[in-house]
Amino acid sequence: MKEFDLIDRFFKQKGHHRRDVVVGIGDDCAVMSVPPNQQLAVTTDTLVEGVHFLKDTPARSLAYKAVAVNLSDLAAMGAEPSWLSMSLSLPDTNEAWMESFAEGFYELLEYYSVQLVGGDTVRGPLSVTVTAQGFIPEGNQMLRSGAQPGDWLYVTGSLGDAGAGLALLQDGAEIKTDTEQYLVERHLNPTPRIMLGTSLRRIATSCIDVSDGLLADLRHVMNASNVGARLFIDRLPLSDQLVDHVGLDKSVELALTAGDDYELLFTVSEEQKGQLETVLSGASLQATCIGQITGQSAHLDLRLGDQPYTKPEKLGFEHF
Amino acid sequence: MKEFDLIDRFFKQKGHHRRDVVVGIGDDCAVMSVPPNQQLAVTTDTLVEGVHFLKDTPARSLAYKAVAVNLSDLAAMGAEPSWLSMSLSLPDTNEAWMESFAEGFYELLEYYSVQLVGGDTVRGPLSVTVTAQGFIPEGNQMLRSGAQPGDWLYVTGSLGDAGAGLALLQDGAEIKTDTEQYLVERHLNPTPRIMLGTSLRRIATSCIDVSDGLLADLRHVMNASNVGARLFIDRLPLSDQLVDHVGLDKSVELALTAGDDYELLFTVSEEQKGQLETVLSGASLQATCIGQITGQSAHLDLRLGDQPYTKPEKLGFEHF
Repeated sequence: MKEFDLIDRFFKQKGHHRRDVVVGIGDDCAVMSVPPNQQLAVTTDTLVEGVHFLKDTPARSLAYKAVAVNLSDLAAMGAEPSWLSMSLSLPDTNEAWMESFAEGFYELLEYYSVQLVGGDTVRGPLSVTVTAQGFIPEGNQMLRSGAQPGDWLYVTGSLGDAGAGLALLQDGAEIKTDTEQYLVERHLNPTPRIMLGTSLRRIATSCIDVSDGLLADLRHVMNASNVGARLFIDRLPLSDQLVDHVGLDKSVELALTAGDDYELLFTVSEEQKGQLETVLSGASLQATCIGQITGQSAHLDLRLGDQPYTKPEKLGFEHF
Repeated sequence: MKEFDLIDRFFKQKGHHRRDVVVGIGDDCAVMSVPPNQQLAVTTDTLVEGVHFLKDTPARSLAYKAVAVNLSDLAAMGAEPSWLSMSLSLPDTNEAWMESFAEGFYELLEYYSVQLVGGDTVRGPLSVTVTAQGFIPEGNQMLRSGAQPGDWLYVTGSLGDAGAGLALLQDGAEIKTDTEQYLVERHLNPTPRIMLGTSLRRIATSCIDVSDGLLADLRHVMNASNVGARLFIDRLPLSDQLVDHVGLDKSVELALTAGDDYELLFTVSEEQKGQLETVLSGASLQATCIGQITGQSAHLDLRLGDQPYTKPEKLGFEHF
């Protein structure tokens, strides 16, 4: 099958058509218009077989995840997603695989009314690169660099689930129980926290998504903001399923160091805590206060109750 | 070396800093502002080792080309390039290679004042995906679909050179003569026709860049515009170097079917020919009238003087 046919057949006519897309897929470029007073947020992420996903990951999950991790970056910035470009490198052409890939790909696009505006399909080792774009009202972006000493540190949802799900898949055993199913789902189908991200725009002083692991991503915020942090280990949000499956100690380790949860880690000043509570009371997603920002630049203080907590050696997932 | 260090070290601080980039590389997203009355053009292209470039292609050439092919798509739309995102998949980390890659990467970015706003570096088989963005005044984009019967068909520069250059590299023989050097350069370092592209915005009725080969790309225009075309084989612009190197017959074949020239193929109405001449007289780049659009949808009429010309079987480069 020809490149042109592939894009035409599986991607060109599908999905939401947005009014701000002047020229869609099929020409040398797509052409879009950005609403007045909005700025454009752009992010790119690549998933490579054997590095970011296991061999034989279902096409549907791979496609879903390639979209999800990019939308998660938009969420962390406070952006509302609008358009996506996708480059798919495939060792061969298998129509059933493509069909299932397209299905997974469009799941979040439909939900958030995001339009695919560009695509390239090439022959090569399996990998997917997505570039996602979204809008932020002028000046409202949430940076990693805005955390201030005294700010409270929050994280959405629960941590460590995706890491446990990955371990289950790596073991290769059959996924039987509801608990196992839940953990695997959390690894394969993370939920980008778009709605909460946009709600936090004027509340959070900094924000990042937890992709490399809590400690690694907190470190990014600390470095960018030139601050330190105190983390309360006993406040880490752990799902019942995770604790059931691996026990408390291992759950804490996964919550600290396993990546791929795609929850939002953000900071809020004492003054904005009430505002945050209001937002959270109307949200279907919870956020937990897990620590506080300190003025001790680059210093991370892990606490278990009144005691210092000795951190595990492995500090989150690193690509090189 | 860590992913973060790689991007920081070789890409973060380099190159032009544009005033419309509010947040550059280093956060979850970049944030940019689009000028009023401008629309955004976006394109994505991936180059994979062994498919789009030969093994052992110099890092500098690979990087240059990954940028050039994307800027060429912007040129074909009439867009002025502004920002780039890049995803680089690397089997290992070699500092000398990265240095040379970054050098080639920034060559066109500096020339056109384009800023790199996003990057991902992953471990995997060698490939580069670039997403390029640019501005077009509202409603001024050049599409493939605007060609009308009677319009004249033009192409910039000369055709077939890149194909001959690729063949030279594939042969693996030492590149000795100036002619050979020229052809190889045309393959490795194509020039995106940005300036002419923006000048054609209000003159051309349709435009595409010649990446798959003249016949294949003309076919795209014919399909999108629902027209036919007459092509005058004896008017194809061939470089002296190409004819010297492979002879006239092979030159014509390469001009028709070899890809990677990245010249602009465009159509102009009879009424706009004068306007085009004015633009060309001030340009350093020439364009040649090589045919005319006809009303016979999907019918391609190749002429050699008064005679029909029998076209070669291979119809341009196709990825699948």
